[in-house]
Amino acid sequence: MAIIKASFMSEVLERQVGFTAIIPADSVRMAGPGSDNAKNDEPIPTLYLLSGYSGSGFFWVYNYPVASLSSMNRLAIIMPDPENHFYTDDDMFGYGWGKFIGTELVEFTRKMFNLSHKREDTIIGGFSMGGFGALLNGCTYRETFGHIVAVSGALLTEGIDQGPGGSDNPFFRGIFGDPAKVVGSHHDPRAAAAEAVKSGNAPSLYMAVGYSDFLRQLNLSMVEYIRGLNYPGFIFEEGEGGHDNKFCEDHVFRGVRLALGKEK
Amino acid sequence: MAIIKASFMSEVLERQVGFTAIIPADSVRMAGPGSDNAKNDEPIPTLYLLSGYSGSGFFWVYNYPVASLSSMNRLAIIMPDPENHFYTDDDMFGYGWGKFIGTELVEFTRKMFNLSHKREDTIIGGFSMGGFGALLNGCTYRETFGHIVAVSGALLTEGIDQGPGGSDNPFFRGIFGDPAKVVGSHHDPRAAAAEAVKSGNAPSLYMAVGYSDFLRQLNLSMVEYIRGLNYPGFIFEEGEGGHDNKFCEDHVFRGVRLALGKEK
Amino acid sequence: MAIIKASFMSEVLERQVGFTAIIPADSVRMAGPGSDNAKNDEPIPTLYLLSGYSGSGFFWVYNYPVASLSSMNRLAIIMPDPENHFYTDDDMFGYGWGKFIGTELVEFTRKMFNLSHKREDTIIGGFSMGGFGALLNGCTYRETFGHIVAVSGALLTEGIDQGPGGSDNPFFRGIFGDPAKVVGSHHDPRAAAAEAVKSGNAPSLYMAVGYSDFLRQLNLSMVEYIRGLNYPGFIFEEGEGGHDNKFCEDHVFRGVRLALGKEK
Amino acid sequence: MAIIKASFMSEVLERQVGFTAIIPADSVRMAGPGSDNAKNDEPIPTLYLLSGYSGSGFFWVYNYPVASLSSMNRLAIIMPDPENHFYTDDDMFGYGWGKFIGTELVEFTRKMFNLSHKREDTIIGGFSMGGFGALLNGCTYRETFGHIVAVSGALLTEGIDQGPGGSDNPFFRGIFGDPAKVVGSHHDPRAAAAEAVKSGNAPSLYMAVGYSDFLRQLNLSMVEYIRGLNYPGFIFEEGEGGHDNKFCEDHVFRGVRLALGKEK
Repeated sequence: MAIIKASFMSEVLERQVGFTAIIPADSVRMAGPGSDNAKNDEPIPTLYLLSGYSGSGFFWVYNYPVASLSSMNRLAIIMPDPENHFYTDDDMFGYGWGKFIGTELVEFTRKMFNLSHKREDTIIGGFSMGGFGALLNGCTYRETFGHIVAVSGALLTEGIDQGPGGSDNPFFRGIFGDPAKVVGSHHDPRAAAAEAVKSGNAPSLYMAVGYSDFLRQLNLSMVEYIRGLNYPGFIFEEGEGGHDNKFCEDHVFRGVRLALGKEK
Repeated sequence: MAIIKASFMSEVLERQVGFTAIIPADSVRMAGPGSDNAKNDEPIPTLYLLSGYSGSGFFWVYNYPVASLSSMNRLAIIMPDPENHFYTDDDMFGYGWGKFIGTELVEFTRKMFNLSHKREDTIIGGFSMGGFGALLNGCTYRETFGHIVAVSGALLTEGIDQGPGGSDNPFFRGIFGDPAKVVGSHHDPRAAAAEAVKSGNAPSLYMAVGYSDFLRQLNLSMVEYIRGLNYPGFIFEEGEGGHDNKFCEDHVFRGVRLALGKEK
Repeated sequence: MAIIKASFMSEVLERQVGFTAIIPADSVRMAGPGSDNAKNDEPIPTLYLLSGYSGSGFFWVYNYPVASLSSMNRLAIIMPDPENHFYTDDDMFGYGWGKFIGTELVEFTRKMFNLSHKREDTIIGGFSMGGFGALLNGCTYRETFGHIVAVSGALLTEGIDQGPGGSDNPFFRGIFGDPAKVVGSHHDPRAAAAEAVKSGNAPSLYMAVGYSDFLRQLNLSMVEYIRGLNYPGFIFEEGEGGHDNKFCEDHVFRGVRLALGKEK
Repeated sequence: MAIIKASFMSEVLERQVGFTAIIPADSVRMAGPGSDNAKNDEPIPTLYLLSGYSGSGFFWVYNYPVASLSSMNRLAIIMPDPENHFYTDDDMFGYGWGKFIGTELVEFTRKMFNLSHKREDTIIGGFSMGGFGALLNGCTYRETFGHIVAVSGALLTEGIDQGPGGSDNPFFRGIFGDPAKVVGSHHDPRAAAAEAVKSGNAPSLYMAVGYSDFLRQLNLSMVEYIRGLNYPGFIFEEGEGGHDNKFCEDHVFRGVRLALGKEK
């Protein structure tokens, strides 16, 4: 298993961008008992894992046992540095963070590493701001991603047009633009999910939120909407806990193992 | 000499930010003949080195002999990842890139590394967008920086209020705001330089631009203004070349050696 | 907090050597509640943390919450890459791994980072092969290290002269030389501990081993010897567990907090 | 292009080992004019590049324009950390450095990255100690490597059995064993080259040495031997210069471009 920080020149973002990667290519003997790591030379299934607000790719490495998640499941994990941009294309600065996650990061890492190109081997997941990004981009780039894991999502577009929401500050305006125009736009996970269902090609979707998460209502509202779509392969789980590391680890990891067919 | 990529949690930018550092702490014998690297345990003089548009901190390491610049001159070099933000505080997103460079990055790296806290040991330099950032922030944070090296500066605020300049696109508007209000604002290197001269505490200033640089006129205009201020310790040099790696290396390195008193 | 991989040119080992470092230089606000990280600009207390056989410095980062240990206790952690050499000077290859750990690594990292030079702020600790190295070098370089944390030590020199021990294979012979000559030599932690006591300047010493550790007898034998020396500031703890990650984490971290005066 | 430091658990060396890699996976537009970098998704040709005594993998990155070599030629470059072991299997410590370079490093990096598995796309090259390693292992593992680039080789086995050579010191004895038994053994590049010619499957071979290199005679002696074998595809070049960075860069890069068919 190799854990690295890398950077490359992004066309979409017009500059060097960084990411962290864990690649499980150890031999069977070295990967340890119980691992199915590196059993052969086949391309490796991949999780694109999105951090929350203020986070970075490397943040996952020192806060969560992602190294073990990788080596025990023969799973490559690619963790971008999101720069607080909510993984969506903003109109103002022209930063195509959604396009970057959904196309360029996947293309670059597939050229660089020995990754599977198959949709069913490609998962997008995240926590908080990363849960928002996983849901939005997983549905939008559904030809690429076969599975979505969205935990404790910072689903700030829920009700953004209806009141003095988070969008009132210049920062959110910079990201999402005019609150009145967000619903139905490329920023809106509801619209993306509806499109995915309509296309007949929706990725499997796992969502989870804690009983005491301050973002609980935004998540329950989204869950209701998703259920209303008869979204196929949708699983929602609740549990004790708030918007914290433990809930994140328990549920992001469970969602990933579900996507890999290693848990039920 | 150690070359590292690091990241830390920025208060100003509200997230993990990355930088590259070269620290010359080798023993005399290991640093090689001609080096005055690590001659003792004293705090190390430091260059904050700012890349151009699309660049990153690590970009310097693989494109320029900065490792040699560090070890031959016993100079720590700190290279931030600028994310194309022109090293200035933008009003829209609230990204305090100027404040970050001028205060937090210096404070953090001084806590982390064994760096000199002395103004005369602290240089800010850069190329292109980084030349703009070095001039603006060197003058603004003149209590911290004793020397400025601004090569081939992307001095986009020159004449920004007078016509259909670069500020017409949303990206520059996002950074600099209303073009009509830039002159005299915290984005304006002229204003910063004038303040620095007035304060009696202006850092030494080295500027350079190539004969065939497409940004030549912007630089000549600034040079004329700086001379008009009777800016003390100002040196301007011209030479063959355009907006390219060779001119950058020759003149950034020369400016740094001038600041260190190693060249005349 | 910054987590980095670095390398530098070692005089002792005559080549580039790598290490991993965690430096807690975040501001109070960023370090989070409960942390006393970075409360000021004072030099930072330091733990030199030695991995077991087959390990490396970075191994600690992805297997143990060392990032949290660092940020919650304002503790720099330096983790060398030991290359399976048991942290002792071997006569055959002339690899001075003991000298490297006890002098050069400390000197280099103190020149590079803003570390405390005080003996009472400098801890050496390790697990398994690293427990051996911490005990041996902590006692040998007792002017530098104020505290030793030796958990589940691979104390292979215990009884090495008395029979068909581990020293029979070429690898151990390469490291320790002639088994008949190890006792009392610079490889022998007993001799180092006796010298330390005699000098009146012995570092505090914490040892621990699990009830089902396969190295239990070697550790109990050493404990008996240490007690016989009336070693001052010696603490030995036992507990459930074997030669595993959980015992390592629980006891290395406890030993470090004891050394810092944060636990009793 | 991504430049990374990685490490993984080696079965052969029984521990975490480090390497540096440059992977040219940028899009055509980003790689720049003149580059044939990343023109498509095909597996990438690869250079295993071996440093000299005291060097490390990352050493290449900050001393030579290997980033440019990679991006201009769409060439992955893998640079191990050799720990001064001459890239040969030593009998004493059981460190299989030859086996590691010739099998495990290739296998791991091919599992990790998107590298070509073709022999003609796989080059082994090096300078000084790395020139020795490239010649020895390129011939030994000739099923894997299609091209050898051996510049300024530290061919210490030349005449090792005939006098008070370099093998008299314990360090060389530790690596090569009894000098009287080196000739014809797995340490001997002559024996490996003869075997390669005999097998009918010898990699192409480029050698070079400077007129004032202190290792010139060892190289000329080897060249004479290689010519005596009628080694197919052998090119030897001389030039001004000694055992230095400039000769290394000029000739290692030329040898690599020859191997890629980009120069004649």
